[in-house]
Amino acid sequence: MEVDEVVCLPRLSRVAVCGGTHGNEMSGIYLVKELLKARKKVMEDEEEKPVSVMLVLSNPRAVQQCRRYIDTDLNRCFTHATLSGPMSDTTPYEIIRSRELNTMLGPKGSPGAVDLVCDLHNTTANMGLCLISYSDCDWICLHIFRHLQASRDRSCTHMPDVPLRYIHFDVSNKESYSLDSVGKHGFAMEIGPQPHGVVRSNVYTAMKAGVQHMLDWVSFFNSGTVFFCFATRFVDVFTMVKRFDYPRDSETHDITAAVHPQLQDRDFCLLHPEDPLFQTFSGETLRYKGKEPLYPFFINECAYYEKGIALSLARKRRVMIPAIRVQTEQEEQSNEQRFTSEEEE
Amino acid sequence: MEVDEVVCLPRLSRVAVCGGTHGNEMSGIYLVKELLKARKKVMEDEEEKPVSVMLVLSNPRAVQQCRRYIDTDLNRCFTHATLSGPMSDTTPYEIIRSRELNTMLGPKGSPGAVDLVCDLHNTTANMGLCLISYSDCDWICLHIFRHLQASRDRSCTHMPDVPLRYIHFDVSNKESYSLDSVGKHGFAMEIGPQPHGVVRSNVYTAMKAGVQHMLDWVSFFNSGTVFFCFATRFVDVFTMVKRFDYPRDSETHDITAAVHPQLQDRDFCLLHPEDPLFQTFSGETLRYKGKEPLYPFFINECAYYEKGIALSLARKRRVMIPAIRVQTEQEEQSNEQRFTSEEEE
Repeated sequence: MEVDEVVCLPRLSRVAVCGGTHGNEMSGIYLVKELLKARKKVMEDEEEKPVSVMLVLSNPRAVQQCRRYIDTDLNRCFTHATLSGPMSDTTPYEIIRSRELNTMLGPKGSPGAVDLVCDLHNTTANMGLCLISYSDCDWICLHIFRHLQASRDRSCTHMPDVPLRYIHFDVSNKESYSLDSVGKHGFAMEIGPQPHGVVRSNVYTAMKAGVQHMLDWVSFFNSGTVFFCFATRFVDVFTMVKRFDYPRDSETHDITAAVHPQLQDRDFCLLHPEDPLFQTFSGETLRYKGKEPLYPFFINECAYYEKGIALSLARKRRVMIPAIRVQTEQEEQSNEQRFTSEEEE
Repeated sequence: MEVDEVVCLPRLSRVAVCGGTHGNEMSGIYLVKELLKARKKVMEDEEEKPVSVMLVLSNPRAVQQCRRYIDTDLNRCFTHATLSGPMSDTTPYEIIRSRELNTMLGPKGSPGAVDLVCDLHNTTANMGLCLISYSDCDWICLHIFRHLQASRDRSCTHMPDVPLRYIHFDVSNKESYSLDSVGKHGFAMEIGPQPHGVVRSNVYTAMKAGVQHMLDWVSFFNSGTVFFCFATRFVDVFTMVKRFDYPRDSETHDITAAVHPQLQDRDFCLLHPEDPLFQTFSGETLRYKGKEPLYPFFINECAYYEKGIALSLARKRRVMIPAIRVQTEQEEQSNEQRFTSEEEE
């Protein structure tokens, strides 16, 4: 792209904010409930018009039981294969629920899908606030990230001084598995550290601010604001390249080591070859044998023990992002016509 | 008691170290498994005689599922009432298991009970290492606590620089409900902060050191060491006096506030009247309305949401502890004779 080009993108008319995709990640659950309560009040007062944001409690049964999931991880159920697979009496609850959500917010990959899905998550890892996306060139997601950074750097109201990162999972749209992949644009907003089943006020406040600033940005964008990139044209993107499991006993499959104390809580601090990785329960240090220094994240995430992931490693790249603005009605109509005639071909 | 008196106490012949009473508190689980592995190795090598410590994985089914409990909280099942109540086909798993453990380590309150139970726990609260006991005058427990303090203060091998406190739950033996109440002496060793379902190397190491120093002390005691109190005759004891639930919605019973960020993680820091207690999800600060400054602990413990406890409050007292030594064989025999003749009366 030309650096001075202003990219025109369709209006974001329908936005979904989802919490409780994992039923024990409490910030998103209480935030969605609080926003629903506030909306009810607004609608009762009839002073303001109803907000155009869909608020979704994704896995109500898991929320009710304060568990990550009932039968299977809901946030792995949004591949095309799972969404279109066979159904029976024994279909797990989360697979049934993923189709309900796909009907509500999608269908995934269709013109009818919501424009933006923001799915709220917590982690036990010391990751600060991360946007996690399947794309490193979704200018909407990247501009929202830039807006959060700018709000924090300018000490905007209620935006706490929390580390912010953009994580990229390099997975095709077909293979993308999480709820946010159902929207035309989408990301997970992941905040930690917070134990699952616990709500920490500072984490809740950071998430509330993050969502509010995201919605503000969408309003600015829809109203025609041109988002230039004055300060810098670049965003640091952490692309996941590798994962490590814990050392395990070959017979019992029990883990035999914990994340090394020198690595614990040091998410996004560069891990060099020969740096400590694990400390066995008998006290031995195991080291990183990779050849490339990489950035660790999701270090010691509670829910990943069962997935066999002790930490993920990322490569950092600087991604240049263009100035963007919303399409005019005229541009949008001509695009729609083009889309229709392409479909007819 | 006379300050210079040396109190003589029976030998601690049988000690139990228990982990996994809550199946998602990982340090104790991995520590007991590691100690069992080490013991197996020692017994195979036949170089040393088998250790005299019983190692118990208290709730194997909950451990297997990495949940606090299957049907009900095991660590509330050791009251005399529950241990002697009726049984049926629908008796919860943990009640059945509590009787097995009572047979193995007790019976509670009987001469056949093990001499000391150390039950290993984790908390999401920032509590450091705490010994929790039902007694503020159990000289065995208090001397073990003093020994841990001294080991830390002298920077003994592997004893990390962790805050140490002694918590006292003022509950009668009849009403005492936890596994450690089955022994003649007993305490919970509680370490945090650690999310449930996660093992943090530093917390594991602190627990391993705590257990090792406790067992060392038992050996010293049994071998006839007289424990004087050179440095100080006093131990700070935190006696629980009050508990607070989260503010809740009267209809849904959902919590409507989190622990205030100025209180979060400040376990054992004196809470004064009018200090912030909670922050509601809409941003309002709720304050401590008590008249007495008290010490908060178990602040925002994950497992206590369902019990309706946001934090506990304690009064701190200095307890004077006497010098102690183990009874000689002669003293023990004369005590046994006295016990037998009392029983015959």
